[in-house]
Amino acid sequence: MTTYTEIYLKARPAGGPINAELFDVVQKKRPSATPGTFVIEQSHMSLDPAMLGWMSPDTESYIPPVALGSIMRSSGIGKVIESQHKNFAVGDIVMGMFGWTEILLSNGEGVNKVEANIDPEMALSVFALPGLTATKGLYSIGQPKAGETLVVSGAAGSVGSIVGQLAKADGLRVIGVAGGQEKCDWLVNDLGFDAAIDYKSDNLAEQLADLTPGGIDVYFENTGGPIQALVYNRMNAHGRIAVCGHIADYQASTPAPGPNWMNIIKKRLLIQGFTMPDHFHEAPKLLEKLTPYVKQGKIKYRTHVLEGLDSAMTGLNLFFTGGNKGKLIVKL
Amino acid sequence: MTTYTEIYLKARPAGGPINAELFDVVQKKRPSATPGTFVIEQSHMSLDPAMLGWMSPDTESYIPPVALGSIMRSSGIGKVIESQHKNFAVGDIVMGMFGWTEILLSNGEGVNKVEANIDPEMALSVFALPGLTATKGLYSIGQPKAGETLVVSGAAGSVGSIVGQLAKADGLRVIGVAGGQEKCDWLVNDLGFDAAIDYKSDNLAEQLADLTPGGIDVYFENTGGPIQALVYNRMNAHGRIAVCGHIADYQASTPAPGPNWMNIIKKRLLIQGFTMPDHFHEAPKLLEKLTPYVKQGKIKYRTHVLEGLDSAMTGLNLFFTGGNKGKLIVKL
Repeated sequence: MTTYTEIYLKARPAGGPINAELFDVVQKKRPSATPGTFVIEQSHMSLDPAMLGWMSPDTESYIPPVALGSIMRSSGIGKVIESQHKNFAVGDIVMGMFGWTEILLSNGEGVNKVEANIDPEMALSVFALPGLTATKGLYSIGQPKAGETLVVSGAAGSVGSIVGQLAKADGLRVIGVAGGQEKCDWLVNDLGFDAAIDYKSDNLAEQLADLTPGGIDVYFENTGGPIQALVYNRMNAHGRIAVCGHIADYQASTPAPGPNWMNIIKKRLLIQGFTMPDHFHEAPKLLEKLTPYVKQGKIKYRTHVLEGLDSAMTGLNLFFTGGNKGKLIVKL
Repeated sequence: MTTYTEIYLKARPAGGPINAELFDVVQKKRPSATPGTFVIEQSHMSLDPAMLGWMSPDTESYIPPVALGSIMRSSGIGKVIESQHKNFAVGDIVMGMFGWTEILLSNGEGVNKVEANIDPEMALSVFALPGLTATKGLYSIGQPKAGETLVVSGAAGSVGSIVGQLAKADGLRVIGVAGGQEKCDWLVNDLGFDAAIDYKSDNLAEQLADLTPGGIDVYFENTGGPIQALVYNRMNAHGRIAVCGHIADYQASTPAPGPNWMNIIKKRLLIQGFTMPDHFHEAPKLLEKLTPYVKQGKIKYRTHVLEGLDSAMTGLNLFFTGGNKGKLIVKL
């Protein structure tokens, strides 16, 4: 093949589902390595909820959105297939923010070599954005202590499932909030959560109260939605809330109100928002924290694999519907 | 006189104004010093918004409420009039949580000697709860940096006025939010705030936008109310919000909703509630930070003095109406 495919962001989503009309799918001529560069063939690409933010027109955000006409941003894993770079050899397996493309030319900046025999789905599910995000938010903000109770929303998602497993391994009582019985069963039966709540079920307040008799010390927020105020109202004194995602409001024209702030004083709550791009420089330290849990078999994951670069465009909608069961990955 | 007056909390407020029926006013026989104790005649007593919390039945709060049938809690200043304690002599001026009483017998626990020539109104306005609270919240949570913009609500109150003056002395742009033109004028003309907004005026959003062209980096929240969401929406990335008071909702049967949490992620906001009783052990360190500003004449204050112990009971309502102009003090 002398050509490959790239996908560019053409227009910003204006509410409603993500569709192919927001993108340009372009055939390009295959590059060759020049001195100091190498060619990567991407094998797997990660789809993450953060992408919805990167596509948005919001200029207030500190992280620059993807510029219109630019390649869509994403992390991925691939193989070096041609090289004139002293640090990268043909056959090396590499990870980085490769974007929505089958092939790319790199000078090595922001590209990391990983073990040759790594499972690419595991690399993207655990050691990329999800694992870094879970580790950063849980430990820097959540400050979990054995014996405490943690609630995580979006618990069956790529970040939430790692947060809950880390906290469980640290001796906390862990309650996950997820959509549907199948996901809840997975959290409890396969990942070892103490309990799970289906946010689509009735009596959320009652379920939560029953499952958190000693209140809640740490809340890891991935979704927003009605569960937020219910968890907030059960926070213990000196509780910590890491605000990582708010998928329930990404498509809302009028975002739902939040809870009244009185409890922030009464309970001396800490509420801290964060996004990983502020903390990419901490990745080595975060991986050092995360890796032992993975090596001890304490972090399980599952993937939901889409086939072909084109599938990324509408694949993003699965974050809104919760239709994916596991980490969303595009296999190229 | 062989008797003195004490006031006990008899019932908890159930919404609506504070009235004398919530209290028992009791005449007691004057105590005498026994070995290891001394007698304090309280001269001035502080009224603080925190008292409304201490009276409330809320058992979720970490700070125990004043027990029914107990003397109402408050800080004050007075003179030792009789002593058999080795560290306290007749004539010493002392401060502490003396409660609503004219006279008390003490073993010295929690009682601090202060300079004999201190102005008692200044002691209660600056070096007691208001100054400690302002210093703790501003520096531990607000992390102010020269050139940044700070907004403080309840700016003409005892805490807010000190917060704003400290920030101003540190080179921040300081906008105060207060009730009424008189208070706003005081903030700008006497305390040197850059500007003030009367929260009772129209076009709050427009006024705030005009006065904070570079956004807001630190918000010190004393009141809640509609200004909260407006300030929140103008927070800059990595902004800090210290939540200290929420007077607007203390009497509400249904507290007003708070702002949606999406901005907490987009701006990576830190929101932290606090109350001074958690931090009384830090008082020496806080006073060390605060005192140089006072000595350099950078902290002005004004007092609103009520006369006689009985005046404390209905005096608390001034926090709801904003009727006090300056630190509320009861002169005994």
